[in-house]
Amino acid sequence: MTTARQLHLNAFLMNTGHHEASWRLPESDPHAHVELAHYVHLARIAERGTFDSLFLADGPQLWGNLAQRPAGALEPLTLLTALATATEHIGLIATASTSYNSPYNLARKFASLDIISGGRAGWNIVTTAGAEAARNFGLAGEPAHADRYARAAEFLDVSLKLWDSWEDDAIVADKAAGVWGDDTKIHPPRHQGTYFSVEGALNVPRSPQGYPLLVQAGSSEDGKTFAARYAEAVFTAQQTLADAQAFYTDLKSRTAAAGRDPGHIKVLPGIVPVIGSTEAEARANEQVLEDHIVHEHGLRNLQRLLQLEPGTLELDAQLPADLPPEDAIEGAKSRYTLIVELARRERLTARQLIGRLGGGRGHLTFAGTPEQVADAIEEWFRLGAADGFNIMPAVLPSGLDLFVGHVVPILRARGLLRQEYGPQQTLRERYGLPRPANQHASALV
Amino acid sequence: MTTARQLHLNAFLMNTGHHEASWRLPESDPHAHVELAHYVHLARIAERGTFDSLFLADGPQLWGNLAQRPAGALEPLTLLTALATATEHIGLIATASTSYNSPYNLARKFASLDIISGGRAGWNIVTTAGAEAARNFGLAGEPAHADRYARAAEFLDVSLKLWDSWEDDAIVADKAAGVWGDDTKIHPPRHQGTYFSVEGALNVPRSPQGYPLLVQAGSSEDGKTFAARYAEAVFTAQQTLADAQAFYTDLKSRTAAAGRDPGHIKVLPGIVPVIGSTEAEARANEQVLEDHIVHEHGLRNLQRLLQLEPGTLELDAQLPADLPPEDAIEGAKSRYTLIVELARRERLTARQLIGRLGGGRGHLTFAGTPEQVADAIEEWFRLGAADGFNIMPAVLPSGLDLFVGHVVPILRARGLLRQEYGPQQTLRERYGLPRPANQHASALV
Repeated sequence: MTTARQLHLNAFLMNTGHHEASWRLPESDPHAHVELAHYVHLARIAERGTFDSLFLADGPQLWGNLAQRPAGALEPLTLLTALATATEHIGLIATASTSYNSPYNLARKFASLDIISGGRAGWNIVTTAGAEAARNFGLAGEPAHADRYARAAEFLDVSLKLWDSWEDDAIVADKAAGVWGDDTKIHPPRHQGTYFSVEGALNVPRSPQGYPLLVQAGSSEDGKTFAARYAEAVFTAQQTLADAQAFYTDLKSRTAAAGRDPGHIKVLPGIVPVIGSTEAEARANEQVLEDHIVHEHGLRNLQRLLQLEPGTLELDAQLPADLPPEDAIEGAKSRYTLIVELARRERLTARQLIGRLGGGRGHLTFAGTPEQVADAIEEWFRLGAADGFNIMPAVLPSGLDLFVGHVVPILRARGLLRQEYGPQQTLRERYGLPRPANQHASALV
Repeated sequence: MTTARQLHLNAFLMNTGHHEASWRLPESDPHAHVELAHYVHLARIAERGTFDSLFLADGPQLWGNLAQRPAGALEPLTLLTALATATEHIGLIATASTSYNSPYNLARKFASLDIISGGRAGWNIVTTAGAEAARNFGLAGEPAHADRYARAAEFLDVSLKLWDSWEDDAIVADKAAGVWGDDTKIHPPRHQGTYFSVEGALNVPRSPQGYPLLVQAGSSEDGKTFAARYAEAVFTAQQTLADAQAFYTDLKSRTAAAGRDPGHIKVLPGIVPVIGSTEAEARANEQVLEDHIVHEHGLRNLQRLLQLEPGTLELDAQLPADLPPEDAIEGAKSRYTLIVELARRERLTARQLIGRLGGGRGHLTFAGTPEQVADAIEEWFRLGAADGFNIMPAVLPSGLDLFVGHVVPILRARGLLRQEYGPQQTLRERYGLPRPANQHASALV
């Protein structure tokens, strides 16, 4: 057994892959996004690769432009529950919005998934940018960024109260005496806040992990403040080693400043590996994908991402010089800045930028041999840029299959990744994190 | 193959059984309510008995008095998703509240379960009585009964728009042309109503059934009006054949009056079968359960059900004569009337009433031999009181096991129940109901 610091791997699953044109490849199933068998297959590949977890992104709206790529998806908590029964070890991280859910319902769903999966549930906490989602929930437009984060913080506080509303030993099960549970070990939240009023205890006992692993992915100022306070794992999009190191250092020190152990927040940049047996083959594979992009769709999406009017951008011109600063953006702030900086740094035309974003929507795309991919991962891991990686294959299932078949063995040989899962562990244990104590139990000791 | 009218059977699953003291029996697992394996076991027994469906009740609150019996439960949609992967044929009916959910989220979850289960999802639509639930969702107290039903009707209308927002052939999947979907086959609800505003299309394609089987269980005036308009199956508590016949006739004619085919609403009274190899053994089994009731808990619950102050009732006295009429009750109206009428008709003391309710909370408890149980079922079925039954075993899993092992073969021998499931069918097909057409597709034809 190695005792070296271990890499954490998360498989970010998305229908036929993260490349927007992946569904057009001959190998791809264009109905995969709603096929349980497809996701079971992916989950089992990830489990063969001894990944810590798998993850589903989400937003409660249908993106327009159905022509471009598979749209819609099975609801993540539903799909992950089905995957819980098809897997044994891997963690199951669902995205859910604090802006468009009720704490009581959502806390209960995560507790239920945590129980059903034997302690493998994780929650990627999002505040959900965009007016489209808002208008599906009775709002006229998108709530302000700061409001969304204030609501998210209160949502978390209420959820933590709900998850702690049963002490771990509240069930007595004394058949002879006719006493099933101990009402003194139930602690109703009695929460009266700005966004929520939640009176009663959760109607499900405390789950194996106490509550799901808390994951976060926004990298704006509000996002980082939130992560430092609550998150145990963070997904992030970083294009360069220097940027990733700066983000890593910043987030760890913010976490310490928030009074938490900086070792208790794991930073996982996203990487889109495009693997070939030679570097040239990898680049050719990447080119095949790029050749399948329909640029007119890409232009429309890019304009939406940058909050520009339709018709502002031209395919073969660089971005205009007078784009607004991040402060003026109400959507996904950090994604905005990352894209603008990438375009300016490399002087990309809109067409080139679309090609670069088509693979990873701002995440690092890396085409190379398995050895080169492993080198890149190890470099970031050793040089203080990552505790692990969010693996986002351009094409699924083949990209995940290649990663597990060819990159994972190298990482294992280097002592960076577990050889096998070993004894049954919760998701939090896999990430090397302690089980949270119940706030009521600890207060009474 | 028989062509006789077929009985529909639903298994109402509830931790260790419907009798409140069932958890105290030596055979019972007091942690069963949160054990997936327990529910998988039950679902497989029901599937062996070729039941049409299984069903989970629910309310978004923790009932007080944990001492009395197992409290809390896995969230039904989560649990049923896990059961979908462990079964092949049986329908999966989850209770969910129209008062404490958002149409967009809930419609999506049911569509996801319907896809994952291959068309086996059903929704028991409830409006959720009680102030406890209301206070978990930011309300000061229970909304008025009529308001809850008005909201429920609008919730259904919005949900139907969401489920029809993708035409069945919206996915084109033309790889060569680079066209995945057809935006002209997407129909955003653009709903602006009293309770909800929902702008956009659902973010999941139309499911195998179009939408889940719509089930309803309230028998108040508002409840019956709602059922006649929307429900395809109705669970009901009826104590006598005459009452059941009157309810059945009334609901069918209301359904016809609402412009629907009365054959398209299936009526399933609840029955709590307590089975013995002789009638005496069945009664003895019933007595064992009654002996395990802690009457002080029962008195507290009865007072809450009847909306009386604590201390109003005495265990060995009949109910007071001056109870309020159903109109004055804001909770579960039909349950209230049923209990009061039962107590008055049979001149029961509170203790006796608690004993009678302990088994089925107002549903018909029937102790007898398998032949007697089958006779009772057949009588109600043939005499216009039922299209099938909601089977509510007093003790689980043993009660369901006995029913499937001993009553089901009799029903099959009499040609009342399918011998086997036969070809793959959706839940709606099992109940003999047509797949609903998409409102947009039919408008265009």
